[in-house]
Amino acid sequence: MNPLSIRDIKQGLAGGEFSAQELAHLTLAKIAQSNPEINAFTEVTSQRLLQEAAAIDQKRSRGETLPPLAGVPYAAKNLFDIKEVTTLAGAELFSTQPAAHDDAFAIKQLSAAGAMLSGALNMDAYAYGFTTENSHYGATRNPHDLTRIAGGSSGGSAAAVAAGMVNFSLGTDTNGSIRVPASLCGVFGLKPTFGRLSRSGSQPFVASLDHIGPLARSVDDLARVYDALQGVDPADHFQAARNIEPVADKLGQTVNLRCAVLGGFFDSWCDDDAKTAVATVAHRLEALECITLPEAELARSAAFLLSAAEGGNHYLPALREHAERFELNSRERLLAGAMTPSAWYTQAQRFRTWFRDNTLPLFEKYDLLIAPATPRCATLIGQQTMRINGADLPVKASMGMLTQPISFLGVPVVTAPLMTASGHPIGVQLIAPPWREDICLQAAHLLEIQGMLVGKTHQVR
Amino acid sequence: MNPLSIRDIKQGLAGGEFSAQELAHLTLAKIAQSNPEINAFTEVTSQRLLQEAAAIDQKRSRGETLPPLAGVPYAAKNLFDIKEVTTLAGAELFSTQPAAHDDAFAIKQLSAAGAMLSGALNMDAYAYGFTTENSHYGATRNPHDLTRIAGGSSGGSAAAVAAGMVNFSLGTDTNGSIRVPASLCGVFGLKPTFGRLSRSGSQPFVASLDHIGPLARSVDDLARVYDALQGVDPADHFQAARNIEPVADKLGQTVNLRCAVLGGFFDSWCDDDAKTAVATVAHRLEALECITLPEAELARSAAFLLSAAEGGNHYLPALREHAERFELNSRERLLAGAMTPSAWYTQAQRFRTWFRDNTLPLFEKYDLLIAPATPRCATLIGQQTMRINGADLPVKASMGMLTQPISFLGVPVVTAPLMTASGHPIGVQLIAPPWREDICLQAAHLLEIQGMLVGKTHQVR
Repeated sequence: MNPLSIRDIKQGLAGGEFSAQELAHLTLAKIAQSNPEINAFTEVTSQRLLQEAAAIDQKRSRGETLPPLAGVPYAAKNLFDIKEVTTLAGAELFSTQPAAHDDAFAIKQLSAAGAMLSGALNMDAYAYGFTTENSHYGATRNPHDLTRIAGGSSGGSAAAVAAGMVNFSLGTDTNGSIRVPASLCGVFGLKPTFGRLSRSGSQPFVASLDHIGPLARSVDDLARVYDALQGVDPADHFQAARNIEPVADKLGQTVNLRCAVLGGFFDSWCDDDAKTAVATVAHRLEALECITLPEAELARSAAFLLSAAEGGNHYLPALREHAERFELNSRERLLAGAMTPSAWYTQAQRFRTWFRDNTLPLFEKYDLLIAPATPRCATLIGQQTMRINGADLPVKASMGMLTQPISFLGVPVVTAPLMTASGHPIGVQLIAPPWREDICLQAAHLLEIQGMLVGKTHQVR
Repeated sequence: MNPLSIRDIKQGLAGGEFSAQELAHLTLAKIAQSNPEINAFTEVTSQRLLQEAAAIDQKRSRGETLPPLAGVPYAAKNLFDIKEVTTLAGAELFSTQPAAHDDAFAIKQLSAAGAMLSGALNMDAYAYGFTTENSHYGATRNPHDLTRIAGGSSGGSAAAVAAGMVNFSLGTDTNGSIRVPASLCGVFGLKPTFGRLSRSGSQPFVASLDHIGPLARSVDDLARVYDALQGVDPADHFQAARNIEPVADKLGQTVNLRCAVLGGFFDSWCDDDAKTAVATVAHRLEALECITLPEAELARSAAFLLSAAEGGNHYLPALREHAERFELNSRERLLAGAMTPSAWYTQAQRFRTWFRDNTLPLFEKYDLLIAPATPRCATLIGQQTMRINGADLPVKASMGMLTQPISFLGVPVVTAPLMTASGHPIGVQLIAPPWREDICLQAAHLLEIQGMLVGKTHQVR
């Protein structure tokens, strides 16, 4: 069936080439074939998928206009509430909780747009990690090389898309959790502006940094899903966007973008593969200048601190009662985070304001900033350290070191996937000013139509 | 000269009854007479006062239209930057700092409106206190009884107005620092909605709770000053108001307010004087119902925690270097605040959202809520405890216990002054929905024209 795009599905359904139910059955077959070795799904919602497909086919048979994502199979990171499914957030701790009584806001948006939900996807426990080596639900394997990590924390979301099991997926990104797995699995990922999309019905991790966003195999697909996700939700106090700004139809427009490459921290802490990918993109986007973000390394530290502190606060009641059920990779850092002096936390929030004030003016001169999404391509599952810039860095913490300062800033980013000389994917961050998701999507589209990105499903053996 | 109102001054200047320079000289004479025993001023800016007066008189002689506060003498809490004056924020620590190179935003607004600045006013060190018993600059004495406290932290601001040394003053209110001294000194005070007025150029204490606002002897004066203070300041990240909504001209309008009294916490933790004052106001405003704010006591605790933590963070570098120069009443609590676990701080901020969500819907049913501003009238200077509700409470911390939950909510409040049977003033909080300063000012005006408020300058011996 793959690689069908959303546009292909729209045309195929309209032209009667296939039905939504056929697509649903193909999706289930593909999941049955690929998931055992990828381990992207923690639950397959076959019944719902087939019901949603039948509903689309009924609309077709009645000659109704189909909604924009009609018949498109997808899946969601298992921290989004799915009605009648227990929301795991990657944690054994939650496995004994009752099933969600309703869908998350984002799932409702996608259902309303006609997309068909095939299941819930694996992740790092509590969304606190960059590798999706989940000690309870197992590691998700990279479809491009099953011995390697998929990245995290939305590892299942990236792998399911890269393996062609679904057309797109929902992920979340606090410090890089969409961008890192998108980079390592060779798919597109969008982390929108902080406050753009409602987070209602998703398990929180760091309230002041959490974002939700889509992953897909093409920019057109990514933009169509993003458009469907946009919606005003009065229940989400952190949502600042109060209007819908569709971008999918703008992709074809001619744009003249003033681009620059991020040097300094972003150029130092990555290997030659990442540098080559950035240079390739910079060349195509005619980014001649290299600029530095002031105090990017401090921004990373501050984001770490906020994550540990807010995450620690969120899980403290559960840690008091059930510490033994916690993911071992996270238990101590959540406890330590909760005990961080409030002066550090407050200072990190104050620094965030300083960092924004001193960084956002760069966008008066440039429309787009370019940086690697990860310091290198995917490491081996179980690999503890990676050598970058002459230092042995811990993989679990450092795979997100280049995404962390950017989400701290709150600006929108598309990760665009390239292929390294060694045949592994790596992503480049295309970073736009606040609320200008259109710019980073247009830039990614420009690169895609020049044929320089991965953009295809990897065929699992 | 007193009690002249702003309207009196406007008419007097227009009619040639007196000049601005005569008002300035009278102000200086009054300060020279009263301040030695009140100790409201830490600096008298005679030269500036006379220059501003001369400028007004020049405008008059040229027949120009005078701005709305032309020739009105005022003074500002000494945490507002005044060009060429060192900003003390009540702290010896800052006394060796260079003078401010520019006026605070609020001072600029008042200068532009023609008001004449006569000096800087005493306060609790760092704005952290409710009594203005400053261990370095001395206690400010209550003009109604010199053996009693003026309240704090804007004690100088309330006393200078109550003693008739100026027509109005600028204060700040984090947990009650305008409302408490207004209550104890028998003047009007307005704490606007959080985010209404720019705080630029004022020494911060608790970024997420600080407000600035005016104190005056009549509601008309208070409203005119508030109108002059309104202005959009792009430099203040916390300012949420993006438009000017003048209220002074609305005071005379007929309003039909649905009022309720706050019971529970607010009714328990005050003495009979306070209860009588609330009952009097409730009767006049026909507030028949008594309602409770859910978890008001927790709201007070959370506000305490945020204050200690953010204040502690703010002063931590100075505490590391010059702990010996700190106000003894505050040093340990600032240090302890900085070390508070971040999980507590985060929880307090999360509770704040909960508290707002569960309290603000009350304003669908009521336009105005009524509560005491302080548990009792002014205590004696040096008095450590006060007996309220059968408990001996520490005066320094507890005088603000009834204001603290309300600023935590962020809504606008006018403190309206009444006189107790024992001849000491006490204030009642008139609490309106967010952004509806007009409502609490109109309610205060309604009470004032019925002649039930203090509203007159106390004649110091």
